[in-house]
Amino acid sequence: MSDIMHGIDVLVSEVGPRDGLQSISSIMPTAAKKDWITALAQAGIREIEVGSFVPPKLLPQLADTAEIVQFARTIPHLQVAALVPNARGAENAIAAGAHKITLPLSASETHSLKNLRKTHEQVFEEVAAIVALIKALPADKRPHFEGSLSTAFGCTLEGMVPEAKVVKLGERLMALGCDEVGLADTTGYANPAQVRSMIKSIWAALGKHALTGIHIHNTRGLGLANALAALDMGLTTLDSSLGGLGGCPFAPGASGNIVTEDLVFMLDSMGLKTGIDLAKLLKVRDIVTAAVPDPMYGFTPDAGVPKGYVQGGHGWGLPERKLAAE
Amino acid sequence: MSDIMHGIDVLVSEVGPRDGLQSISSIMPTAAKKDWITALAQAGIREIEVGSFVPPKLLPQLADTAEIVQFARTIPHLQVAALVPNARGAENAIAAGAHKITLPLSASETHSLKNLRKTHEQVFEEVAAIVALIKALPADKRPHFEGSLSTAFGCTLEGMVPEAKVVKLGERLMALGCDEVGLADTTGYANPAQVRSMIKSIWAALGKHALTGIHIHNTRGLGLANALAALDMGLTTLDSSLGGLGGCPFAPGASGNIVTEDLVFMLDSMGLKTGIDLAKLLKVRDIVTAAVPDPMYGFTPDAGVPKGYVQGGHGWGLPERKLAAE
Repeated sequence: MSDIMHGIDVLVSEVGPRDGLQSISSIMPTAAKKDWITALAQAGIREIEVGSFVPPKLLPQLADTAEIVQFARTIPHLQVAALVPNARGAENAIAAGAHKITLPLSASETHSLKNLRKTHEQVFEEVAAIVALIKALPADKRPHFEGSLSTAFGCTLEGMVPEAKVVKLGERLMALGCDEVGLADTTGYANPAQVRSMIKSIWAALGKHALTGIHIHNTRGLGLANALAALDMGLTTLDSSLGGLGGCPFAPGASGNIVTEDLVFMLDSMGLKTGIDLAKLLKVRDIVTAAVPDPMYGFTPDAGVPKGYVQGGHGWGLPERKLAAE
Repeated sequence: MSDIMHGIDVLVSEVGPRDGLQSISSIMPTAAKKDWITALAQAGIREIEVGSFVPPKLLPQLADTAEIVQFARTIPHLQVAALVPNARGAENAIAAGAHKITLPLSASETHSLKNLRKTHEQVFEEVAAIVALIKALPADKRPHFEGSLSTAFGCTLEGMVPEAKVVKLGERLMALGCDEVGLADTTGYANPAQVRSMIKSIWAALGKHALTGIHIHNTRGLGLANALAALDMGLTTLDSSLGGLGGCPFAPGASGNIVTEDLVFMLDSMGLKTGIDLAKLLKVRDIVTAAVPDPMYGFTPDAGVPKGYVQGGHGWGLPERKLAAE
């Protein structure tokens, strides 16, 4: 799936089936999940985090993750991602055929103990074990392995997390053999200046190849502003959740990912290619609404696109000269 | 009031008592408006658009604007702004003692006809008459006169409005004697790329002094991203409305200004000085809620500030070295 960025400027990575569903108490039937993922792919979504390989008793909402990964793998041109809390989860994710596996390392050790029940050192041991698992596979079977720096912008339990600490944890993840680190604003604490500063520092320490994406929550309404800050810096992958479904159940007060529909409208209206058909995307909400009673959010779904809006253009309201000049 | 920017980086101009109240059908009692404005000023808000000098039969919600302006003038260190639709309104605003008067010129002539019932040429005649009124005043009695380019980023009736047209209208306003133009995304159509492009073009044509502020709606959830884009360019005044109350009743589908509480949190967490006390600001909501039944919005009021957050600092999560380096 190395051609995942072909023809697009920004990869919108949908995390609703994982982050969205894990944060609500309703359990979406497996058939509805398959319909949802299929419809997302048909709307042009190229990467979906379809589930998490955690024990079913902890997150019964995601108990069918192996089946969902196997199913999603049959959809052409879709990069199938899954979250794993440890090496055992990674083994299951690899067996199911995930293209990409993400292990969250909470920059706040207090949160790490609550979320994964592990110290930083214990998480690093899992990372090393996962790298060993992956290296044992034939080269063409190896999933992309991301170490996600969660609570990177602060923690509801510890408060502020120093940037230097996040960078150090990222260095360790890369040294252990992760393909990439990710930044996650698990608690919705981030601001645009902090996003820029963090990206700059991580790039300085680890190189640009080591960080391409960010996972943002909209808890304080700053979600799209933070996304813009990340885009301006040059990140190319943005996580979001259809209808803003989601949040982290282990970080009190944390709520909803940024809304995929609003994000896609922002990117498209800026003239950035996402490969996503917004009209089709808006219709995908019906599948979720029919399957679970939980509320869906978003402004663009209510307001619609501007009058005369043409999708996939060179940017709403941008003068033609910009095409030549920029 | 030339020292309005003293000690701050960004002027948050509260438009709730005008844009907020004009968009709801409830009529807030005059006493509650006075309490609201007083509390806003006590929270550190330095500029408030307190009303609009339109005929009371059109907007009964704002029928007491003259009394409100006179009252607001008694509050120290507060710049009192008022909207005027024409020279007659400007006369009343000046008589009441407004420090700043704003006349909206809708870039969409269709919207202008609906909103002010005037063609562009007819609005320009009013602008000229207002400039004459102001010039007849002693120098120390002259209000600041802004020509606001409304529907500058598109119109729910006309659709896209070419940037070049907005620039030309701005040139005409300045040539007629406005002190400044303003940009208003009346319909919530703007995107960050368009905001940047528009500011660049207006500055190129009119000079930087001619544009310092922007009025953004959050109709499609892009409000704070657009605010960030404007900030990055160097605009220093951002309009917003407490609780996101507001919108333009003559632009169908348009809704809510950006939320003052979320905007202030964003600016403060970025280390930008606003002079506003966020804790006090959040309490001001109670006055509005007690006076009118209409819903108030905002994420920060629900989520609260991050754990351990200290207001007025050097930016949440920004490393100390930034102080020296940037």
